Amino acid sequence: MNSILCTGSLLTIFLASHFTIQAQDPLPSWNDGPAKQAIVEFVQKTTTEGSPQFVPLTDRIATFDQDGTLWVEHPMYSQVMYCLEQVPAVVKAKPELKNVEPFKMVLTGDFAVIAKLPKKELIKILEATLTGMSVEQFQADVKKWLATAKHHRWQRPYNDLTYLPMQEVLEYLRANGYKTYIVTGGGQDFVRVYAKQTYGIPTEQVVGTAGGTKYGYEKDGKPFLTKEPRLLLNDDKAGKPEGIHLMIGRRPHAAFGNSDGDRQMLEYTKAGDGARLCMLVFHDDADREYAYGPAQGLPATKVGAFTQALYDEAQKDGWTVISMKNDWKRIFSFDE
Amino acid sequence: MNSILCTGSLLTIFLASHFTIQAQDPLPSWNDGPAKQAIVEFVQKTTTEGSPQFVPLTDRIATFDQDGTLWVEHPMYSQVMYCLEQVPAVVKAKPELKNVEPFKMVLTGDFAVIAKLPKKELIKILEATLTGMSVEQFQADVKKWLATAKHHRWQRPYNDLTYLPMQEVLEYLRANGYKTYIVTGGGQDFVRVYAKQTYGIPTEQVVGTAGGTKYGYEKDGKPFLTKEPRLLLNDDKAGKPEGIHLMIGRRPHAAFGNSDGDRQMLEYTKAGDGARLCMLVFHDDADREYAYGPAQGLPATKVGAFTQALYDEAQKDGWTVISMKNDWKRIFSFDE
Repeated sequence: MNSILCTGSLLTIFLASHFTIQAQDPLPSWNDGPAKQAIVEFVQKTTTEGSPQFVPLTDRIATFDQDGTLWVEHPMYSQVMYCLEQVPAVVKAKPELKNVEPFKMVLTGDFAVIAKLPKKELIKILEATLTGMSVEQFQADVKKWLATAKHHRWQRPYNDLTYLPMQEVLEYLRANGYKTYIVTGGGQDFVRVYAKQTYGIPTEQVVGTAGGTKYGYEKDGKPFLTKEPRLLLNDDKAGKPEGIHLMIGRRPHAAFGNSDGDRQMLEYTKAGDGARLCMLVFHDDADREYAYGPAQGLPATKVGAFTQALYDEAQKDGWTVISMKNDWKRIFSFDE
Repeated sequence: MNSILCTGSLLTIFLASHFTIQAQDPLPSWNDGPAKQAIVEFVQKTTTEGSPQFVPLTDRIATFDQDGTLWVEHPMYSQVMYCLEQVPAVVKAKPELKNVEPFKMVLTGDFAVIAKLPKKELIKILEATLTGMSVEQFQADVKKWLATAKHHRWQRPYNDLTYLPMQEVLEYLRANGYKTYIVTGGGQDFVRVYAKQTYGIPTEQVVGTAGGTKYGYEKDGKPFLTKEPRLLLNDDKAGKPEGIHLMIGRRPHAAFGNSDGDRQMLEYTKAGDGARLCMLVFHDDADREYAYGPAQGLPATKVGAFTQALYDEAQKDGWTVISMKNDWKRIFSFDE
């Protein structure tokens, strides 16, 4: 009798908590408006059995750009900061680089100058800091950096600078059976180090720019993989749908981006049958984050360009533009 | 009162079915022996909380070669059969190929001659039948072929020729929280077409030899991807751990293969910490399937070579060799 009563109570608790979840706002950091409404309506129509736009569980794929979509990308991508801040260690290991450009210049630490490095020179820094080591060594280096590195403006770890409203979208989609993927122009191996802890996304759900690896053996015969300067996937622009095909093999039902680099991913997503959700984060909040454009007269920038052409395509193709200023009640978890 | 009693009954049913599952043999098509024992012990020690070799849910990755490990690979890989059987359609679309080798020879249908095609000529056939079309067109072509093509020996669809004992291993591992991946030298796009239906494995858990795709637009502006003759990943031998790193990003805890092409995947798996399960399917059953070697004096073959060196490494590194003849009670689901 005791156990039957006990089960009865458990059932009550279960039903009560179930209804609480249903009643709670899944997106509390969003202001009411067309952006929030688009997300909630998409989830409802694609997950309600019998809905004409119902999507079976195995097809629920959602892809997210990272830099500028899930976390801050200004004034410089965090991975580029990682590479620059690794230069002293690289030069310590290879002292002959001390007087060789661009290493010499990066060693001065003058970020105003470093920010103007031509692409060709920057690639030398990326190669020296992202390749040549074992996969495990690289993971350890990134982990160590993340534990101490801070964003200059907020003086906080990069992990703190994820957008709370987007974390809520990730969680809301997953709670409704969507597999959430990061599809980033950034380095796949870099983002994978912290994706689980930061976004709840496992390594195999991070698609990014990827180089080849080389299989070899240590002296004791133990096999290991070395990161090579051989580009396999440039996961930016048209490379995003190509990366999605390579790594996922199915067209997403929802895609989120913030720049011209995400255009093809959103087009590819929208071109599928049935309900598709395409959203662009628009950085129009200089007070709480950054404002960059050039849409609505904001200045063009090197990082994360949201061009007028992209804005026009969003209007024409039915994508939703998220205004950070108007749609987001809070931006960071540390905001009041 | 009614609902409490009802809940009590449901609980009874739940507990009863739970115990039935526990008591059932998860591998009924396996004979008792060291191979079956190795699988069961591995699952028990990696999934029992408190076990020194417990593996957290997020790290439970198991990888399976396909041809010769999950289904029949003799006398020719099924994907090669697909390519050869597509040649008439290719020539119909491009009549100028009718008198060009190797197309002319393949059109004769003389498989004894075709089987001896040099690699360079075979690649021309693969390129003509695996690239140049849209991703969707290729998927439709493979689906159509699978619905009618038959293996010459059994006169059954290729889907019927999966090994029942290996299907049980896939299911058993998944029931214990393992994510099961196919890691094949075969074409990723090819295997993905039927992996869900045949093995219960979704497209994103199929890693295979992969070519690039090209993003473009149809006349109406709809974007699509074209399969290109540009190799991104040769997922064989050392390419298997490289492919695992690219697509999964973590070292498997269990790996299954059957040939020299799987050696590095098994080495890489075994080199990880804690419990690792590495197994090789050995084809020693000419009556029920095929026997090929050259281990134990069986003749070497072009397809799926299991060399003496591989056999020796298995003994030395603690991999388990599965004898189809002795370890498998039934091979196919249609066996009596």
